Amino acid sequence: MSRTAHAIADPVVHRAHWRDPEDDQPRLECGVCGVWGAADTDGASIVALGLHALQHRGQEACGIASVHQARFHTERHQGLVGDAFGGSDLSQRLPGSAAIGHTRYSTAGGGFARNIQPMFADLDSGGIAIAHNGNLTNFHHLRKILVGEGAIFQSTSDSEVILHLIARSRKAKIVDRFIDAIGRIEGGYALVCQTRSKMIGARDPLGIRPLVLGRLGEAWVLASETCALDTIGAEFVRDVENGEVIVIDHEGLKSLKPFPERPARPCLFEYVYFSRPDSVVNGRSVYGVRKAMGRILAREHPAEADVVVPVPDSGVPAAMGFAQESGVPYEMGIIRSHYLGRTFIQPSQGARQKGVRMKHSPNRSVIEGKRVILIDDSIVRGTTSVKLVRAVRAAGAKEIHLRSASPPILYPDFYGIDMPSRDQLLAANKSLEEMRQYLEVDSLGFLSVDGLYEAMGAGPRDPRHPQFTDHYFTGDYPTRLLDREIEEGGREEAARQLSLLVSA
Amino acid sequence: MSRTAHAIADPVVHRAHWRDPEDDQPRLECGVCGVWGAADTDGASIVALGLHALQHRGQEACGIASVHQARFHTERHQGLVGDAFGGSDLSQRLPGSAAIGHTRYSTAGGGFARNIQPMFADLDSGGIAIAHNGNLTNFHHLRKILVGEGAIFQSTSDSEVILHLIARSRKAKIVDRFIDAIGRIEGGYALVCQTRSKMIGARDPLGIRPLVLGRLGEAWVLASETCALDTIGAEFVRDVENGEVIVIDHEGLKSLKPFPERPARPCLFEYVYFSRPDSVVNGRSVYGVRKAMGRILAREHPAEADVVVPVPDSGVPAAMGFAQESGVPYEMGIIRSHYLGRTFIQPSQGARQKGVRMKHSPNRSVIEGKRVILIDDSIVRGTTSVKLVRAVRAAGAKEIHLRSASPPILYPDFYGIDMPSRDQLLAANKSLEEMRQYLEVDSLGFLSVDGLYEAMGAGPRDPRHPQFTDHYFTGDYPTRLLDREIEEGGREEAARQLSLLVSA
Amino acid sequence: MSRTAHAIADPVVHRAHWRDPEDDQPRLECGVCGVWGAADTDGASIVALGLHALQHRGQEACGIASVHQARFHTERHQGLVGDAFGGSDLSQRLPGSAAIGHTRYSTAGGGFARNIQPMFADLDSGGIAIAHNGNLTNFHHLRKILVGEGAIFQSTSDSEVILHLIARSRKAKIVDRFIDAIGRIEGGYALVCQTRSKMIGARDPLGIRPLVLGRLGEAWVLASETCALDTIGAEFVRDVENGEVIVIDHEGLKSLKPFPERPARPCLFEYVYFSRPDSVVNGRSVYGVRKAMGRILAREHPAEADVVVPVPDSGVPAAMGFAQESGVPYEMGIIRSHYLGRTFIQPSQGARQKGVRMKHSPNRSVIEGKRVILIDDSIVRGTTSVKLVRAVRAAGAKEIHLRSASPPILYPDFYGIDMPSRDQLLAANKSLEEMRQYLEVDSLGFLSVDGLYEAMGAGPRDPRHPQFTDHYFTGDYPTRLLDREIEEGGREEAARQLSLLVSA
Amino acid sequence: MSRTAHAIADPVVHRAHWRDPEDDQPRLECGVCGVWGAADTDGASIVALGLHALQHRGQEACGIASVHQARFHTERHQGLVGDAFGGSDLSQRLPGSAAIGHTRYSTAGGGFARNIQPMFADLDSGGIAIAHNGNLTNFHHLRKILVGEGAIFQSTSDSEVILHLIARSRKAKIVDRFIDAIGRIEGGYALVCQTRSKMIGARDPLGIRPLVLGRLGEAWVLASETCALDTIGAEFVRDVENGEVIVIDHEGLKSLKPFPERPARPCLFEYVYFSRPDSVVNGRSVYGVRKAMGRILAREHPAEADVVVPVPDSGVPAAMGFAQESGVPYEMGIIRSHYLGRTFIQPSQGARQKGVRMKHSPNRSVIEGKRVILIDDSIVRGTTSVKLVRAVRAAGAKEIHLRSASPPILYPDFYGIDMPSRDQLLAANKSLEEMRQYLEVDSLGFLSVDGLYEAMGAGPRDPRHPQFTDHYFTGDYPTRLLDREIEEGGREEAARQLSLLVSA
Repeated sequence: MSRTAHAIADPVVHRAHWRDPEDDQPRLECGVCGVWGAADTDGASIVALGLHALQHRGQEACGIASVHQARFHTERHQGLVGDAFGGSDLSQRLPGSAAIGHTRYSTAGGGFARNIQPMFADLDSGGIAIAHNGNLTNFHHLRKILVGEGAIFQSTSDSEVILHLIARSRKAKIVDRFIDAIGRIEGGYALVCQTRSKMIGARDPLGIRPLVLGRLGEAWVLASETCALDTIGAEFVRDVENGEVIVIDHEGLKSLKPFPERPARPCLFEYVYFSRPDSVVNGRSVYGVRKAMGRILAREHPAEADVVVPVPDSGVPAAMGFAQESGVPYEMGIIRSHYLGRTFIQPSQGARQKGVRMKHSPNRSVIEGKRVILIDDSIVRGTTSVKLVRAVRAAGAKEIHLRSASPPILYPDFYGIDMPSRDQLLAANKSLEEMRQYLEVDSLGFLSVDGLYEAMGAGPRDPRHPQFTDHYFTGDYPTRLLDREIEEGGREEAARQLSLLVSA
Repeated sequence: MSRTAHAIADPVVHRAHWRDPEDDQPRLECGVCGVWGAADTDGASIVALGLHALQHRGQEACGIASVHQARFHTERHQGLVGDAFGGSDLSQRLPGSAAIGHTRYSTAGGGFARNIQPMFADLDSGGIAIAHNGNLTNFHHLRKILVGEGAIFQSTSDSEVILHLIARSRKAKIVDRFIDAIGRIEGGYALVCQTRSKMIGARDPLGIRPLVLGRLGEAWVLASETCALDTIGAEFVRDVENGEVIVIDHEGLKSLKPFPERPARPCLFEYVYFSRPDSVVNGRSVYGVRKAMGRILAREHPAEADVVVPVPDSGVPAAMGFAQESGVPYEMGIIRSHYLGRTFIQPSQGARQKGVRMKHSPNRSVIEGKRVILIDDSIVRGTTSVKLVRAVRAAGAKEIHLRSASPPILYPDFYGIDMPSRDQLLAANKSLEEMRQYLEVDSLGFLSVDGLYEAMGAGPRDPRHPQFTDHYFTGDYPTRLLDREIEEGGREEAARQLSLLVSA
Repeated sequence: MSRTAHAIADPVVHRAHWRDPEDDQPRLECGVCGVWGAADTDGASIVALGLHALQHRGQEACGIASVHQARFHTERHQGLVGDAFGGSDLSQRLPGSAAIGHTRYSTAGGGFARNIQPMFADLDSGGIAIAHNGNLTNFHHLRKILVGEGAIFQSTSDSEVILHLIARSRKAKIVDRFIDAIGRIEGGYALVCQTRSKMIGARDPLGIRPLVLGRLGEAWVLASETCALDTIGAEFVRDVENGEVIVIDHEGLKSLKPFPERPARPCLFEYVYFSRPDSVVNGRSVYGVRKAMGRILAREHPAEADVVVPVPDSGVPAAMGFAQESGVPYEMGIIRSHYLGRTFIQPSQGARQKGVRMKHSPNRSVIEGKRVILIDDSIVRGTTSVKLVRAVRAAGAKEIHLRSASPPILYPDFYGIDMPSRDQLLAANKSLEEMRQYLEVDSLGFLSVDGLYEAMGAGPRDPRHPQFTDHYFTGDYPTRLLDREIEEGGREEAARQLSLLVSA
Repeated sequence: MSRTAHAIADPVVHRAHWRDPEDDQPRLECGVCGVWGAADTDGASIVALGLHALQHRGQEACGIASVHQARFHTERHQGLVGDAFGGSDLSQRLPGSAAIGHTRYSTAGGGFARNIQPMFADLDSGGIAIAHNGNLTNFHHLRKILVGEGAIFQSTSDSEVILHLIARSRKAKIVDRFIDAIGRIEGGYALVCQTRSKMIGARDPLGIRPLVLGRLGEAWVLASETCALDTIGAEFVRDVENGEVIVIDHEGLKSLKPFPERPARPCLFEYVYFSRPDSVVNGRSVYGVRKAMGRILAREHPAEADVVVPVPDSGVPAAMGFAQESGVPYEMGIIRSHYLGRTFIQPSQGARQKGVRMKHSPNRSVIEGKRVILIDDSIVRGTTSVKLVRAVRAAGAKEIHLRSASPPILYPDFYGIDMPSRDQLLAANKSLEEMRQYLEVDSLGFLSVDGLYEAMGAGPRDPRHPQFTDHYFTGDYPTRLLDREIEEGGREEAARQLSLLVSA
């Protein structure tokens, strides 16, 4: 049932892990959702619908914790929300009018089942469950201190640090303990917690990760994106603000700002890739921003061509914007299969030399003999781009002009996006011309950083006070990176055994 | 492991079964693929790639049978091809240079595992495996005769009839026995068979179901659609012709036409819905036909509007054609989730009144305050259309003009398409105005039958010799429907127990 | 779900398969049970209890088929009866007042799931399910004829031959068809069949395999052994007679003797090893016979010793009889673990040199320093005996006198007992003194054939008309062995592919 | 994958849980085994063999933790040791020359997977794994203190308290931290722990639970019983002493006695029921003690009868002793099925009135018409005894004289034996005559406490300094019962939510 081969001792290591050579997309680790004040048996059902709408933020594991008559019920599964929580017996399995949930991109195989959220602790003052999207930049530092004090860790997740900080706070009330805990963490986070009587939501001081508030009749809803509110049928109330702590209980909703206020810096990658196009993030339509990115890209990097072809699905709105701006016809020149086929083996013969294309298939009828402008949302390592370019070429394209709807990615992320290390990032290691040759295209263009800011409707970037989190493009990290500083300071941690008290 | 509650005794009954009220698409029951003459360990791997490309033709079960040194190896699974046959040990599990495979929309729960193909029989002259896409219209008639002669049936699949006919043929050679057998069956079929030394392909006399021939180096490939050849890396050679039997062995490829030749009548629904847009079916690009359908639809049923919005994914090309023809801007006004969520329960509160939309989400930013032309590929029962219309209305659409890129569906199919019975078909039971009111739209239009023929590049329909199979629109069935005639003739079969010698 | 690597083409081959070197017991392939006329929801529950009591006759797979309102319901599972059919929902899963069941020692891995019984056929005249204990000696001969006539086989089980013979009989009535079919088979069998309205039981012309009839209120019960009747709570009525066909329906019980009558020759191994000690087989208490075997063994092969120690569990009654007769104290000198441990790997160190003893552990406190008489029920290959002897020696035994409570096994069985081939039978290949040395014992003795007949209360063996089936000791096979004659006649079957139309 | 319905909040509650009305045996919760200094790949294999031999101490879950190059590897499974750890890849899965393991009677369904041992903590000074047999009588008291200090519990097992105490000790060295921790716990325990470089064994101050030391070549072995040493092939060295801490590392074996010495009081139930008959516990052969119990019982409660019949398997040695002492013949009058059948449903008819007997079947041939002395090892609630008595009566016994080979059970246990609460103990609620009537026997007798002491070879009980733990018979608990005192003191704990950070 449970095997744990402790090959991965340091979460820094596994975070950099980059699994599928054919799958060259950055990955986000989580979506969160919570409801408070629903009908008695509805908490988990509503959260399940919300998590389903957030499935694009993580497909490998999910969990829900509900509270009924001051008692907690939890289930955590590998796989999709629909498979785990679609059943008609959900209200029996997870009763209660309040529930929180989490869907995640699990970072590795079965052994990491204990990292599935929500996580739970039984405090002196009652239980608390927590769902976390983001990443703490001082996780290892805090973990080392806590273990030194006798804490026993059950997972390799940074979310567990927050639980231990809450458990060890000397404050009496749970909200004070929670604020005590988040006062010590650094990084990017959106948190949804459930105690016996309250739901608590919080967003990091810079609002790096998103979190929105909605209303469903008398009930309150918290979710990573507005698309979850739409699916649930809830009304959007407002974004949770950067640095805000929201407490919901039978007395209503309270908004706390326990720390000094700072200007927000939301993460640009939510617009470039992560959020669903029908979501409105920090007041901006994701679909609208992406189309604008395409339009500006057309102005910055035009090309003489016959068709504009998106790399589906994330490249579609930018390609539509590019086509509208440039007047070059938009065509579905690449068909995406939505059935998983990652693990296919390659036959020894034939197929190999032409590249096995399991996810994207060129649509020869609109490519053959054409000059093609290919629009992708971003280029990370370039490994899949080059395969796709070859496939499009093999389908008869005369010329291929590749355009990235986001700027060159030069630096890794430490706030919850799973990206390869710097030496694997194409743009960090090659000049534009080297990239063009590597990608085997006739021309190559990236949206500029200022162009991206313009697409966001935020004028050019203010270098002294950047309006957004954009370090992957600029190297300007919005917070201290304590774990990384310690590591680079030569005080390298010996590979340490992680706790496995319970290894699912 | 194996339970069989024989609640479904008559395949006619279960073929009409229509599972998910939210899922109002016709379903096709199968895709087939075979390879002969590959490298020794490659047969199954190539077929697995081909089946993956054909996954849209059936997602619920799949199987592969390979031949190695005159010995057969088979595996049959529920679920996706990638899950079943993606593993790196496939060439050990299913060795051989020749293999055939099948992917299907399984018609019911676990009890029908014994219907998964390829099916196999151990004849006096050696084994034969068979993969079948289509449906026989004289299945029950033949089955009754065979059981009367002492045949023991192991499945409820009409494909097994073919095996029994082959087994009982008095001919000596396997190809003659095969021709003997298909001489007795009626309906629509594409067959791929494997004997110890030959691969046999066949298409029904009218070419209702598609089958193409390709070449991968020295090896021959048969597949339902060209997209499978593209994924495998094989070159398209030609369509298998209607009524043609192709025999491939170490002496090469032989084409037989054992029966009187008749003009072909390929199924139009392959273009309307089933085939993948990047496939070329009977010489026509599916994507191109669909765009043409949209263009003609725009001419037949124009509307004053602000945006053209497709119902994704199948409505996209027609919507693009409609937008190009009409000049109304094309926008992604509906976002499709590709994560399964069919079985979600509905919370008692809030969500229900607005309709639970798990698969399609309106993109409010492009819909709000707009007059919307909504393009769907077809309208079957209308149940999901009305939900979608309501959702689009709730997202702020001022007007909704629904257009179907295919004619009204008036009659059920008996050639391998899973459609509801006539009393459930919207267009068969309501006038246009009644449909418009039922669907709650401001205007409603269907592509005409002649318009569809025009989109196919085949001029208007010739009523005496229709160029295509189109009975769902016209009631003009291309073959005799023997089972149905017997049933309607009052000689109704008593509900009969099906064989369960092996019930998986 | 279903994989079939057709490595085993010829059941003759797999019958000789002998899996576990540590497990040197002959195996019986089946137990059968049926009930007719119980309360409506009780059929399957009663049969499940009966199969549980017969679990010693086969632990690897089991199945039940019930009939409710002329409709059949079946489930077939790998594993124990309690796991498969213990659930409280059984009467929903398998409704009906009539049911038959089967438990078997499955001969190989997952691929043979299709051999699990009851098997079923849908005849022209209605369905029939069959459960079979025994083995047909003309199976391959019949199978070849049937395949030549176009029959498609779904399993490698000889039981399926019977179904095909029934299906092809030209008789109109099901009982006549059944008699037609068993008139063509040879070998040893106990059959329990279920049609829509009748239960049929039959025993082979010599009564080799056992079958008893019982009454449970108004209902009739058929079972392999009386212990099943006891567990069910049914009263023993009588043994089904050799060559008898029993038909039970709403008109009551009919006994048919369709073939010329012959004297019975029940199988002696039922008494030596297979039947449960609390069963009464053909009128004799198994426990009583075993004790008598021990008493006679003590007279035939006495030894000066301190303790009589059985090899548990099957050697216990004989050891008790030996101790009573000899006056040497009986002690539990070997403890048997009932937890499975067959597949344990051996550590490289320590344990190996002393022999890994997973099933039998010497009880040092009663062995150390003692002269031990060790009583086993039989010696097949001797491989486990020698390990056990060494373990007893290592526990401090001064002398070991091994006694077998049955005669030397010299010939293989073809009537349903899974035994190694002749070249692996210890007694068939060594003299008594060679065996003694091989087994590393101080003395060795076997019960004589006449001694065994005496223990059966049947006087000495009558060589012209032996009272029992005893070929394993004497070479005197009670029937023709047609398959074997054909094979030995040089007309060796080419390894033939078996049917896998449905491979569970 | 993981569901946790937190219905059971208080371990006191679930410990008293008593599942199967037909299964009226006390249950022991654990067996432990460890090895240090084996060949590199042998640690886990040796421990697996040892656990297999200890399988009678717990069949529902098992786990092994090995150490290889200062790194821990663990697996924990539900089910039998042979199923979980029998595979040939064990040395790859769990490498290392040192390993510890645990087998347990899991107290409830899947939700308690997180209670499976060994448990593990990642301390500042390195990891530690722990396997525990026994029960702490101040568990809730300590848990409450630890949670108040911020500890987060992951299981409901008292073993986790020990880990937290070790984690929070202020001592620097792991052995000192371990001693610190066990200095705070009370109750009965045998512990085997593994650190990166040491194996530690410990037994509670009174030696209630057993633990033995063995040698396998150069390696050291710790195990609950000597039968594990025998199976492994290790030599018995000595019992670990009460209150002893044994530390094994590359410097060899050290014995520590950190606490004031007290006379040992081993648990009598190890002899009555738990230990395997071939084990030698605290210097006494379990088999020998049980036979002596039978002999003394025959003197204390003789009966005029025809046969002595044991309730197998645990009643067998006492019945043999009784028969030898009394001269009444010993017979296997009850046959035990070793196939699980606990969950069988009862048919509505027939069977019920006679009682469904799944585990024990009367052997009519030795019972019918006889006066039977029935010997059981103990009588707990009497529920299965009465069923058995009825079955024996139904099989024709003229008289039944029931004898218990242990004294009346009057008080529950708190040291690791799962017994029902006092109000369910037959002898605690009825007089001898009432019991006789309830059990429907002709006479009833229990071994006296002094008789049991005599069977142990320890003369009569010394009431001031009892030589053994015997509170179940006498009410004389050997330690303080702090949790129980707190509970009874009216300061009843509100049902508290248990931690579920990881719920397997």
